[in-house]
Amino acid sequence: MFAVTILGNNSAVPAFNRHPTSQVVTLDGNNYLVDCGEGTQIQLINYKIRRSKISHIFISHLHGDHYFGLIGLLNSFGLLSHQQELHVFGPAPLKEIIELQLKVADTKLCYALHIHHITEAATLLDNDKLRVKCFRTNHRIECYGFSFEQKKHPRKLSLEKAKAFEIPANFYDRLKNGEDYTKKDGSIIKNDLVTETGETGKKYVFCADTKYDESLLPHIKDADMIYHETTYLDNLRQRAEDRFHSTTKQAAELALKGGVKKLLIGHFSSKYNTLEEFEAEAREVFPNTELALEGVCFEV
Amino acid sequence: MFAVTILGNNSAVPAFNRHPTSQVVTLDGNNYLVDCGEGTQIQLINYKIRRSKISHIFISHLHGDHYFGLIGLLNSFGLLSHQQELHVFGPAPLKEIIELQLKVADTKLCYALHIHHITEAATLLDNDKLRVKCFRTNHRIECYGFSFEQKKHPRKLSLEKAKAFEIPANFYDRLKNGEDYTKKDGSIIKNDLVTETGETGKKYVFCADTKYDESLLPHIKDADMIYHETTYLDNLRQRAEDRFHSTTKQAAELALKGGVKKLLIGHFSSKYNTLEEFEAEAREVFPNTELALEGVCFEV
Repeated sequence: MFAVTILGNNSAVPAFNRHPTSQVVTLDGNNYLVDCGEGTQIQLINYKIRRSKISHIFISHLHGDHYFGLIGLLNSFGLLSHQQELHVFGPAPLKEIIELQLKVADTKLCYALHIHHITEAATLLDNDKLRVKCFRTNHRIECYGFSFEQKKHPRKLSLEKAKAFEIPANFYDRLKNGEDYTKKDGSIIKNDLVTETGETGKKYVFCADTKYDESLLPHIKDADMIYHETTYLDNLRQRAEDRFHSTTKQAAELALKGGVKKLLIGHFSSKYNTLEEFEAEAREVFPNTELALEGVCFEV
Repeated sequence: MFAVTILGNNSAVPAFNRHPTSQVVTLDGNNYLVDCGEGTQIQLINYKIRRSKISHIFISHLHGDHYFGLIGLLNSFGLLSHQQELHVFGPAPLKEIIELQLKVADTKLCYALHIHHITEAATLLDNDKLRVKCFRTNHRIECYGFSFEQKKHPRKLSLEKAKAFEIPANFYDRLKNGEDYTKKDGSIIKNDLVTETGETGKKYVFCADTKYDESLLPHIKDADMIYHETTYLDNLRQRAEDRFHSTTKQAAELALKGGVKKLLIGHFSSKYNTLEEFEAEAREVFPNTELALEGVCFEV
């Protein structure tokens, strides 16, 4: 399963029982944490997300509502005897901030922590299942969005046909990867005689904090789902502009222009007690919009 | 009213819906925050503690469960247009940690923030209502406890008697402070003819994280209420010793030897799901013990 679980959807100051930004992207049992506002470790417990399955954390920018919970989570990983390596990606000087706090507490982590500074658009992770890339967004301080591209599934093998052509089982993985099979007599079994196209990989894009900016379009193009902030309702466009944030209709407009399939909206200002209007306004422009409600898991 | 409200009573890792250490000491409408674990700002909202009435924050030591919520609170004060000066006391390099995080976010606070480094036993605050002193405790890293001494109330004035002696009303405050009144004819009205002794000030002592250490006795002596950590039940004395923490009976023993009137216990290890045994064990040694339960307000 490829899905996104919302842990926090509020901007800046916690309010109305909404928490600062954090999401978990889950793919085939692995958890990738995106942003880590204060209290994220408690939200992970509340929503029963397995902390031991988190191997990568992506921090969009160093406004507190996106990373003040990171040091607590890293510390707790240590106390909970986390086993695997942990990679954290974020803008400088994240490493300095974290290491200073570990040092003054005389904390020796029991796991290998690697903090990587992001400095430009780049591929951050590329394994056989997933590619994660970052890109700049248009915010008051250096800020990055993240795209999660599921790798194309391998080709689907017809066992029956492979057996009929007497292809040995130890060659099946290479068939799934598209190779032809050459028999001992030199004759060639073309791959598409025994396989079919696999499923296409899906794509989720987290657009972080940003003002409306069409330079994001190439990154969200044809995504199956994106998250775009909507700090304000659309009557506060000027305030959004001044504070490098977006409104409902701006997020929806970008989703529409990007040809994406589904839009999640969040990062709601603490001035709003209820969220119905956010949904209604965005849907006027882009009908397949959902509120990024905390605790809800959205399949990509 | 002189009271202590518990915001968090758990050690290290959040568990069983218990939060890391934080307490609010309230005296005559002013709030003094003691420690500030992750999520403290949310606990302040949950328990309806007025953030605008917080003027002083005391941080015992730089283990994360005692201060990771501070940066978020200071940041939120800024976003909520906090008006009054804020004084924070804690061990070095707290100031560096906070200022680095404010700087990278390009945050300009709208209020005056003063971070004072504690380096030894000292008086941190001394106004007409309250004296706050700090003292070293015996923990793995530099750590301080805090004593809150309510100033002696002024003498009680008998209005009737003052009028009978024809003392002018603008001299009443000086009578309350113990002065004699000299009449125009040179005769003296002795203070105790018109006033009586006021109430004695009360004393609350927060003993922070510490192993059992009788060098704390002078600081808790005859206090009306103390808080002493009990990370472990008494069967884990060796573990407590190794980790510079205390057990139930050790806390109770110190309270008994210190002649204090009431003991609050907290900083429970995350290994314990329930707390009844903590109360029972401590009460065997010191009957007037209470669990420092979150949300409960204890009058000093």
